[in-house]
Amino acid sequence: MADEKTLVRFGILGCAEIARKVCRAITLSPNSTVYAISSRTIEKAKQFATNNNLPELVTIYGSYEEVLDDPYVDAVYVPLPTSLHLKWAVMAANKRKHVLLEKPTALNVGELDQILEACESNGVQFMDGSMWYHHPRTARMKEFLMDPNLFGEVKTIYSSSSFLPPPEFFENNIRTKADLDSLGALGDAGWYCIGAILWSMNYKLPTTVTALPATIRNTNGVIMSTTVAFYWEQEGTTATFYCSFLSHETMDVSVLGSKGSFHVEDLIIPYEETSAPYYFTSCASFADLHLGWSVAEQEVQVHNELPQEALMIQEFSRLVQEIKDSTITPDRRWGGISRASQVVLDAVKSSVDNGFKTLYL
Amino acid sequence: MADEKTLVRFGILGCAEIARKVCRAITLSPNSTVYAISSRTIEKAKQFATNNNLPELVTIYGSYEEVLDDPYVDAVYVPLPTSLHLKWAVMAANKRKHVLLEKPTALNVGELDQILEACESNGVQFMDGSMWYHHPRTARMKEFLMDPNLFGEVKTIYSSSSFLPPPEFFENNIRTKADLDSLGALGDAGWYCIGAILWSMNYKLPTTVTALPATIRNTNGVIMSTTVAFYWEQEGTTATFYCSFLSHETMDVSVLGSKGSFHVEDLIIPYEETSAPYYFTSCASFADLHLGWSVAEQEVQVHNELPQEALMIQEFSRLVQEIKDSTITPDRRWGGISRASQVVLDAVKSSVDNGFKTLYL
Repeated sequence: MADEKTLVRFGILGCAEIARKVCRAITLSPNSTVYAISSRTIEKAKQFATNNNLPELVTIYGSYEEVLDDPYVDAVYVPLPTSLHLKWAVMAANKRKHVLLEKPTALNVGELDQILEACESNGVQFMDGSMWYHHPRTARMKEFLMDPNLFGEVKTIYSSSSFLPPPEFFENNIRTKADLDSLGALGDAGWYCIGAILWSMNYKLPTTVTALPATIRNTNGVIMSTTVAFYWEQEGTTATFYCSFLSHETMDVSVLGSKGSFHVEDLIIPYEETSAPYYFTSCASFADLHLGWSVAEQEVQVHNELPQEALMIQEFSRLVQEIKDSTITPDRRWGGISRASQVVLDAVKSSVDNGFKTLYL
Repeated sequence: MADEKTLVRFGILGCAEIARKVCRAITLSPNSTVYAISSRTIEKAKQFATNNNLPELVTIYGSYEEVLDDPYVDAVYVPLPTSLHLKWAVMAANKRKHVLLEKPTALNVGELDQILEACESNGVQFMDGSMWYHHPRTARMKEFLMDPNLFGEVKTIYSSSSFLPPPEFFENNIRTKADLDSLGALGDAGWYCIGAILWSMNYKLPTTVTALPATIRNTNGVIMSTTVAFYWEQEGTTATFYCSFLSHETMDVSVLGSKGSFHVEDLIIPYEETSAPYYFTSCASFADLHLGWSVAEQEVQVHNELPQEALMIQEFSRLVQEIKDSTITPDRRWGGISRASQVVLDAVKSSVDNGFKTLYL
C-alpha cells in the first residue's frame, strides 16, 4: 500500500449508478482514495455516501463546482450525462484536475477535442472510463493478435454489446433522452463494440462506415438498436457490430485472422471478478477426410488480482502521480484511443441520420 | 442393422475429395450401402475404390451414365463441380434415382428449380449435402432458439465460415475456376453461413441483402472472400456473415435473442466426431454494481452415436426406403431448405456483381 500522502485524491462529480462501481474501484486501487463526492443536492450526495459505506473523512459537496474548487482534489471522475461532459470536463481541466471521463466521452468529436485541448493545455491526464482495456486478458489477447505466426493479419471482426433493461429504463433512464444521452445504445453499448474493433485494428480508422436500415429509435429519436459495417480498404478487412437496449445481454468480440482466431463473450464485464477467459484457435486445418479439426479451440483463463475497474483507476492514478511528481507528462495515448472511438461513433450516427449512407472517413 | 435387402443402394457420381467422407458415411449408416462408384475413367474409379478400401462387391463404372442406368442403384450422391449439377441431377431424377446433391446445389435458383422439378415429377427424394443439419446438436440448439422464455425473438445473427487452403488450391481447385464452381468461397463456405442464418430465421428470406465492398475475387473473377449483411424488415432482425478462402479456419454461428443467446464455433465440422458443444446464456443481467453477470454462460455437450454425415445418410436413406415401400411421398422440406439458401446466395452474388447494391427479395 502506498503512503496516505501519495494516494491520488479523487472527487466524483455526480452520483450515477456507475459511480458506485467506480467509487469501490478507487477504494480497491492501492494508489488512490475517494476524497470528495458531490451531487446537485447535498442530501443526494449524503445518501450516496451512506449507501456506499464511504468513510466519514470523505468530503460531501452539494455542487460539482465545490469539488473543482477543492485544492486537495487531484482528479475527478465524471459520470454525468454525456450532454454535460463538455462543460464539466473542460472546467475540471482548467482547474488543473486530472479527468477520468465516463463514456461516451462527448456528444461528438468536436466537443471531445475541446476537452482534450483543455487537458493538454493544463497538463492534466485524460482517460475515458472503458474498463476492459485494463484487464490483463486484454493484453494477453493483444499479444496473440500481434503474433504473425499464431494470428497473422486481421481479416474480419465481429462484436455485439447488448442488454435488455426493465421497462422503467425506457421511461426514465438518461440513455433514452435526447437532451441527456442522445447517443443512446450507440453511445453506451456501441462504444464498446467500436472500441473493441478499433483495438483489434490498432486504432486505425476504417475507410467506410455504414449503418444498416435495421436501426431502431425511440419516440425521442434516440437510437435503441443498430447494426453497423466497417471496411478498411487497404487491408481488405471488414468488421460488423450490433449494439442494442432491446436484446439479451451480450459482450461478444470475435477476431479472425489469416492464421488464427479468438473470441470472448464477456468483454465488458467479465463473468468473474478475478479471472476471465478467452478462446483461441491457431493454424487449424481439416483433419483427414474432413472428419474433424487438426487442432481444437483452446481456453485461456487470465487471472487478475484486482478487478478491471480498479486496474483502470490504478493506471490512471499512476499516471497522475507521476505527473504530480514531474517525472512524466500526460500520456496522450488514452485521449487518442477515446478520440478514435468518438470519430467512428460520429460516423455511425451520421450514417444513421443520412438514410444509412456509407460514410468515408 | 437392416437386412441387406432393405439397404438403400448408393451410386456415387465422381471421386471428389468430399466423396471419400460421404462414402465412409454411407458405410457407417445402418440403412445404406455403397453399391456403385464412378469416375470419368475406370482407372480413377478403381483407384478410389482401393484408396477407400471399398469391398470387391462394389460396382465400378468408368462413366456417370452407367451408374444411372444400373437398375439396382436406388440413390445417387453427386459431388461433381456445381456447373455439372443441373445436367446430372436432372438426369438422375429422370432415371428415378433419389438425389443427394453436394452444395452449392446449383449455379443459380433457376437451375435448382429445374432439378427440384425433375425430382418432384419423378417422385424421388432430394436433399443437399449440408451435414450439420443432421447433428443432434442442431436440434438441441433449435429447441433453445424456439423457446419463448429462454430465447425469445431473434435479434441478430453472425456467422463466419473460412479456411486458408494451401497455395496449390488457388491454382488447381475447382472452387477457384469460373467454369466449374464459379460461386467460389460464397458457394462453398458462404453456403453454410447462409444456411445457418436462414435456419435461425425458420427459413424466412431476408427483406434485403447487401454485400460489402470488401469482396475479393481471384483473376478468374471468382469470389475468394466476402462480407454480407441481411435485414428482415418486419422483425427488425439483422444478420452478417463473412466467408473466405483467405482466413484461418472458422465455423462460427452466434444467435442473439431478446432473452437469450447461444454460439458455436465448430458448426460445419465438429471438433470431435461423437460429441459437439454449444454455449448459451439466458435471462442474464448485470449483477449488483455491475461487478459480473447474474448467470454465466453454460456449455452443453451433445453426444452423437454416428457422425453427422452418417446421420445425414441415414435420414436420406430412411426417406428413400419409405418412398420405395410406398408409405410416404418425397419430403419436400429438404428441397425448400436448399432453395431458400440458393435464393439468398443468388442475391449476394447479384449484390457483388452490381457494385454492392442492396437487393430487395
